[in-house]
Amino acid sequence: MSLRHFLTTQDWSRAELDALLDQAVAFKHSRFGQQLAGKSIALLFFNPSMRTRTSFELGAHQLGGHAVVLAPGKDAWPIEFDLGTVMDGDTEEHVSEVARVLSRYVDLIGVRAFPKFQDWSVDREDRVIKAFAKYATVPVINLETITHPCQELAHVMALREKFGNLDKKKYVLTWTYHPKPLNTAVANSALLIATRFGMDVTLLCPTPEYVLDERYMELARQNVAESGGSLRVSHDIEDSYRGADIVYAKSWGALPYFGRWQDEAPIRQSHKHFIVDEAKMALTNNGVFSHCLPLRRNIKATDAVMDSPACIAIDEAENRLHVQKAVMAALARHTPSR
Amino acid sequence: MSLRHFLTTQDWSRAELDALLDQAVAFKHSRFGQQLAGKSIALLFFNPSMRTRTSFELGAHQLGGHAVVLAPGKDAWPIEFDLGTVMDGDTEEHVSEVARVLSRYVDLIGVRAFPKFQDWSVDREDRVIKAFAKYATVPVINLETITHPCQELAHVMALREKFGNLDKKKYVLTWTYHPKPLNTAVANSALLIATRFGMDVTLLCPTPEYVLDERYMELARQNVAESGGSLRVSHDIEDSYRGADIVYAKSWGALPYFGRWQDEAPIRQSHKHFIVDEAKMALTNNGVFSHCLPLRRNIKATDAVMDSPACIAIDEAENRLHVQKAVMAALARHTPSR
Amino acid sequence: MSLRHFLTTQDWSRAELDALLDQAVAFKHSRFGQQLAGKSIALLFFNPSMRTRTSFELGAHQLGGHAVVLAPGKDAWPIEFDLGTVMDGDTEEHVSEVARVLSRYVDLIGVRAFPKFQDWSVDREDRVIKAFAKYATVPVINLETITHPCQELAHVMALREKFGNLDKKKYVLTWTYHPKPLNTAVANSALLIATRFGMDVTLLCPTPEYVLDERYMELARQNVAESGGSLRVSHDIEDSYRGADIVYAKSWGALPYFGRWQDEAPIRQSHKHFIVDEAKMALTNNGVFSHCLPLRRNIKATDAVMDSPACIAIDEAENRLHVQKAVMAALARHTPSR
Repeated sequence: MSLRHFLTTQDWSRAELDALLDQAVAFKHSRFGQQLAGKSIALLFFNPSMRTRTSFELGAHQLGGHAVVLAPGKDAWPIEFDLGTVMDGDTEEHVSEVARVLSRYVDLIGVRAFPKFQDWSVDREDRVIKAFAKYATVPVINLETITHPCQELAHVMALREKFGNLDKKKYVLTWTYHPKPLNTAVANSALLIATRFGMDVTLLCPTPEYVLDERYMELARQNVAESGGSLRVSHDIEDSYRGADIVYAKSWGALPYFGRWQDEAPIRQSHKHFIVDEAKMALTNNGVFSHCLPLRRNIKATDAVMDSPACIAIDEAENRLHVQKAVMAALARHTPSR
Repeated sequence: MSLRHFLTTQDWSRAELDALLDQAVAFKHSRFGQQLAGKSIALLFFNPSMRTRTSFELGAHQLGGHAVVLAPGKDAWPIEFDLGTVMDGDTEEHVSEVARVLSRYVDLIGVRAFPKFQDWSVDREDRVIKAFAKYATVPVINLETITHPCQELAHVMALREKFGNLDKKKYVLTWTYHPKPLNTAVANSALLIATRFGMDVTLLCPTPEYVLDERYMELARQNVAESGGSLRVSHDIEDSYRGADIVYAKSWGALPYFGRWQDEAPIRQSHKHFIVDEAKMALTNNGVFSHCLPLRRNIKATDAVMDSPACIAIDEAENRLHVQKAVMAALARHTPSR
Repeated sequence: MSLRHFLTTQDWSRAELDALLDQAVAFKHSRFGQQLAGKSIALLFFNPSMRTRTSFELGAHQLGGHAVVLAPGKDAWPIEFDLGTVMDGDTEEHVSEVARVLSRYVDLIGVRAFPKFQDWSVDREDRVIKAFAKYATVPVINLETITHPCQELAHVMALREKFGNLDKKKYVLTWTYHPKPLNTAVANSALLIATRFGMDVTLLCPTPEYVLDERYMELARQNVAESGGSLRVSHDIEDSYRGADIVYAKSWGALPYFGRWQDEAPIRQSHKHFIVDEAKMALTNNGVFSHCLPLRRNIKATDAVMDSPACIAIDEAENRLHVQKAVMAALARHTPSR
């Protein structure tokens, strides 16, 4: 039987995703279990984390397991990912060794590895987590690379708590301004999961340059073909918000500008009015607002929106704990006892 | 019922403090319990820690709980504390979100946040931990900000182990030299706890500029009015040490010089003779010496004093473990099961 | 009874080492136990770690204990090791306090402290771990200083898994190139453990300047006198590899060049041909290859060697978990219950 990973929700059937969400709801009602008794997970953070680290570490503990948190390049050795390299640079060991050794120690490996933001054609290969998945002999979990599937599950769980069935809900994924060009991971993920669950999805962004990678656009089109939802791109704020049930915000850098961000900055700065505010939310169908966090207040969304009852970002963040426990439990079911 | 925090010992009655100390003594005799079974604590360190981190992490574990250690701005996202800010600077998320999300994950939140040392009028507002206490929906514990209440309990526990009843003991809190202008937290705390427990307290410092913030001086005066102790300020080393039962040392920067430390440095450097040495200790009533640690040897106290039987700093440090378990257990008693 | 540490395998009798290895084999078959129930270990990392940290943290957990990971100078206070110093420099506390306080909290202390690489006559004193062993009142474990005894046990365990009895096996410890002048710790350790277990050991290095410290050469000579093995130094690659059963590779800086590495660099760079490759391995007696990791591929050993069945480096890395649990269990047996 081939090894099962949690790299993207697209590798999991809709029935499997529903089962994960059901298990997450069960964990929300009753936090403790023995699904990871005697098992362990290594959490590799190539980038900062607060929610992910806390919720995975606690989640493993609550299921009887143990999490080891590692920061390669900071308190562990920097890692090489290319094949065949003569390693005379900064990296001290190859992912092949790291993944194989960790697989001897632990039962699951989680990896957070953001893009380098220099060349999208490189970043879109997502080679760090793919290398771990290639060499590890235990399941690998995506803690955010160029998608963020754990966030997807937490997000859709929060939406279900609010709406129940999500078919044909009007869902707006809106770009917002941020002083730095950010990762597209959560935006890609929002597109995938919203289309997967049959919603009518609008991708709202300033210009065509801010449309997401065609790989994710195409997957989203395939998803709506199966799920019965729809997908459109819009640059019209008022039209997008009108009648929306769900507004999900995220900032990201425009893909054509990777590596020459000084050229993108003035475009980004000219669209600060994409901020989610009360006026825009008033156009919705008494819609809810969410965001993956961290969120810069009064940049991405106003204090008024963040502090309103419509904001379910804290619920979504809480759900990270529950869905990730469901993912760990599902993957660990198939790992051998030591 | 409103949420109970452990931000300062002044919020806890003398009977409550005595109960915490009794519980700490019980934990010293028998380390293990289930008071935190199924519970967890997030420990947020904005500044370095050795004793605090080790003793809280172990203490939670010994009571059946789990501690997650986070370093915001280093391996987690930098946090904004001001209200209404347009967050276009370095901070990536607001304490409102951090505190509310952590409250969904954990049952207790510990926060270490030292002053910035630029403007005492700002630092004295202690806004980091106050913001956590404001937004968190679980109890918040002070791991040292501008006071250090856990150290207070460990200190008074060590003194009781030595003396039993502390009423009317002659207690000297002496300033000492240190190459850097340090936090007044432990000095403020020593003043509070020594006056609270009815001791005759002398604050010994080089000049009137080194007297502590009037807020703590006034609380100390209120404390002695209730406890039957006394409080005086002295700049006379020999007179202060003579007949003392307890010498507690701490270095701190003079409050009027915050933000212009180059002006304070020569004053500080001219008072290196405040070092605790054998000659000074010989003036005491066979007194004990303690310090919160870390301590620079032969700067704050000589090797001879540190290595003498009179030094109870190691006992005080050990007691951190016991008193903090008592604090966690007391606060967790009122948190809901998940 | 005097305190037992695990600072070097030379302090442990051959029978004791055999018992540790037997226990490690037992742990490899059955991972879980209660040998550390209610006990804890502080892991102090003055340098980065991946395998050591993960395997110790997990190992303690699997035996019912708890590990606290500390990084002095990074997230804990910088520590002074000299005696009698007037501490007006960068260090904030003395090892005497750190070791004594940690001994009150935990039952075992592990220390990783690499040399400073400026002056070998200083580094060879190994004063960091010796200071911890001097002041601690609990056992201290060497996590790599100027030797690496945990690696030794993992290494010899892997060799026994392959060969059974190791008497008179032909063992080559070969120097290899690395862009930086590295620690001699694993090389010293390989020399000690291979001679201890009765092997015919060749130390292969580019020039006499790369021979290891006379302290370890002399211990190795004493070891072979007792164990029945042999020791020779060679600068002839082909002669050394011919008929070898075991090739163990490590790079290190030449001792006479400590502190003036610019002079050593050209010598080191002129010996890149010491890389372990298929041609060299073909000279052996169908020998195995190993390395302590991290390893720079195509610098110390080629991809072909690393990915060949002859490479047992991953097994050796796995064994770190098992042997370290055996060491912790052996030391904790004699620590008092709290």
